[in-house]
Amino acid sequence: MNIPMATKPHDRLAAALNSDLEAVDGLIRARMHSDNAPRIPEVTAHLVEAGGKRLRPMLTLAAARLCGYDGAHHLKLAATVEFIHTATLLHDDVVDESEKRRGRPTANLLWDNKSSVLVGDYLFSRSFQLMVETGSLRVLDILANASATIAEGEVLQMTAATDLNTGEDVYLKIVRGKTAALFSAATEVGGVISDAPEDKVQALFAYGDALGIAFQIADDLLDYQGDSGATGKNVGDDFRERKLTLPVIKAVAQATPEEHAFWQRTIEKGRQEDGDLEHALSLMAKYDTLNATRTDAESWAAKAQAALAPLPDHELRAMLHDLAAYVVSRLS
Amino acid sequence: MNIPMATKPHDRLAAALNSDLEAVDGLIRARMHSDNAPRIPEVTAHLVEAGGKRLRPMLTLAAARLCGYDGAHHLKLAATVEFIHTATLLHDDVVDESEKRRGRPTANLLWDNKSSVLVGDYLFSRSFQLMVETGSLRVLDILANASATIAEGEVLQMTAATDLNTGEDVYLKIVRGKTAALFSAATEVGGVISDAPEDKVQALFAYGDALGIAFQIADDLLDYQGDSGATGKNVGDDFRERKLTLPVIKAVAQATPEEHAFWQRTIEKGRQEDGDLEHALSLMAKYDTLNATRTDAESWAAKAQAALAPLPDHELRAMLHDLAAYVVSRLS
Repeated sequence: MNIPMATKPHDRLAAALNSDLEAVDGLIRARMHSDNAPRIPEVTAHLVEAGGKRLRPMLTLAAARLCGYDGAHHLKLAATVEFIHTATLLHDDVVDESEKRRGRPTANLLWDNKSSVLVGDYLFSRSFQLMVETGSLRVLDILANASATIAEGEVLQMTAATDLNTGEDVYLKIVRGKTAALFSAATEVGGVISDAPEDKVQALFAYGDALGIAFQIADDLLDYQGDSGATGKNVGDDFRERKLTLPVIKAVAQATPEEHAFWQRTIEKGRQEDGDLEHALSLMAKYDTLNATRTDAESWAAKAQAALAPLPDHELRAMLHDLAAYVVSRLS
Repeated sequence: MNIPMATKPHDRLAAALNSDLEAVDGLIRARMHSDNAPRIPEVTAHLVEAGGKRLRPMLTLAAARLCGYDGAHHLKLAATVEFIHTATLLHDDVVDESEKRRGRPTANLLWDNKSSVLVGDYLFSRSFQLMVETGSLRVLDILANASATIAEGEVLQMTAATDLNTGEDVYLKIVRGKTAALFSAATEVGGVISDAPEDKVQALFAYGDALGIAFQIADDLLDYQGDSGATGKNVGDDFRERKLTLPVIKAVAQATPEEHAFWQRTIEKGRQEDGDLEHALSLMAKYDTLNATRTDAESWAAKAQAALAPLPDHELRAMLHDLAAYVVSRLS
C-alpha cells in the first residue's frame, strides 16, 4: 500500500478540485467575517490557515463531482464540513487542555478557553446557516445526525477512555464520533446534493465511514510510533492524557495481573511517574499491538476501497481509492 | 405594572399550557437519554430540573396555540428552544467561570469544564435533530440565524464588555445575542409552524424581541439591586466579572475624569480592591442609573405589549401581555 510521495493522492485531489477548493476558501473567509466581533475571524484564521489539509471539504467536492453535480451547493456543504471540523477542534483543545495543534500552539493557549468555546459555537452556527441555504432537508438530517454522533462520541470518550473495561467495540463508537461521522457525512451529502441514486449515496457513506475509521486508527497509532516533528504532536500524548486507544486496549486485553495493575495506576488513576511511557511501550511491544493496530487500519482502508465499486469509473474515484491507501501508508 | 403574586402570569401560562408542557418535558427527557454516554442526562438533568421556568418553551407553545395550531411540531420546537437555552447556559458557565446558577452549584463545578462544553455541544446537536424533524426550512432558517446571533453576541460580550467605550448600542446587540434572539425565535417559530399570516408572525417576533430585551435589562439591573437569596446570584457578580451592563454604562457616560479612572482600573484593568463594589454602587446612585435602567426595561416591556396588537383576542394573548409587565415588576 505504499504510495510514492511525489504522487500523494491528497495533492492530486487538490489539483483536480482546484477551482472548487478556491471557491470554498473564499466562502470560508466570507462567512468567518464578523463586523460585531473581530475576535472571530482572528481565532478561526489561526486554525483554518494553519496548513489544514482541507480533507473533509475535498471529500464533499469529490463525491459531488463523481455524481456529476453541476450546481453550487456542494461548495456550501464543503465549507459546512470544514466549519464543523474547525469548531470541534476548538472545543477539543479546551477539553484536552492541549498545547499543540498541527505543530502550532492551540487557540486556547494563544487566546483563552472562552474564545475557543464561543468561537467554536459561532462556527457551528455558521455551518448551520450554510447548510440551511442548500434547502435540502435530507442534507440537514444527515448533518444533524452526524453532529449528534460527534458530540456523543466526545462525551463517551471523556467517560470511557480512562475505564480499562473499554473494549474495541466502544473504541469504534468513539472513533466514529471523533472522525468517521464527519467523513461519512461529508461524502454522503455530496451524493445527496447531486440527487445520485441510492446505491451510490450508500457507497459514498460507506467509503467515508471506513476511511474515517482507518484515518483515526492510524492517528492513534502514530501517537505511539510517530515522531513529534512529523505529526506536530508529542509521542505518548494519549498515554499522558489517559486516553485509551487501540494499541493500549489490545495490550490491556492480554495483560497479566501485574500489567493490569500498571494500566490501572497510569490510566484509570492517572498516577504516572517517570519511565511509565517507556514501560507502556514495552508492553505494547510484548503483545505486538502496534502491528495488530496497523493491520486493523489497513483492513478499514481496504473496506473503504471496496465500497467505491458502485461509483462511476472516474479519475476522482481512483484518487479516493489511493487516498484510502495513503492514510495508512503513513504507518509503514 | 405591579402584578399580585397569586396571579403570576408565568404560572397562569403554565396552567393554560399544562398538557403541552408535560408533553415537552417527556420529549426533553427522551431526547436527553444516551445509551452510550450516561453522563449526558446526568449533567443536563441538573440544569433542566433545577427549577428552570420553562419560559422559552412556553413562548413557543403559546405562540402556536394563539395562531390556532393543532399539530404536534410545536412540542418539538418548544423542546428545541429549551435545549438551545440549556446548552448556552452550560457553555456560559465555562466562559464565566461561574459558581452558581439558579441558586445551585454550576455543572462545571460539580463535574468539570469538559462535561459542560461537550454536553452543551450534544444538546445543540439534539436540538438540531428535533427542528429538522419539523420539516420546515423556514423554521430551520430562523433558528440558524438565532444561533448565529447568540454566538456572535457572546463573543462580542467577551471582547466589548471590559471596554469602557462600549455604549448602549453595543449593549443592545449583546442583549439581543444573550437573550432576545432566542425569545424572538421561540415566538416566531410558533407562528411559522402554524402557517400564520405574515403580520402575525412579525408581531410574534417583535413581542419576543422586546420581551427578551426587557428581561435581560431587568436581569442586569437585579445584579446590582437584587438580594442573593431571591436571584440565586451574588450582588455585583457582573462588576466582579468585569462585565459592563446598562447601569454601569450609563454611569461611565457621565463620569468625571476621576470616576473614569475608577472604572478603568476596576473594569478595564480588572484591578479590584475591597470597597470597590460599594464605590461603584455609589456612582450609580449619584447618576441615578439604576432608576434610568429600570425605565428602559419598562419601556421595552411596553413595546412588547404593543407588539401583541395584531394577534387574536385570546386568554393566551392576555397572559403574554401580563408576562411583559411581570418581567420588569421584579424591579420595583
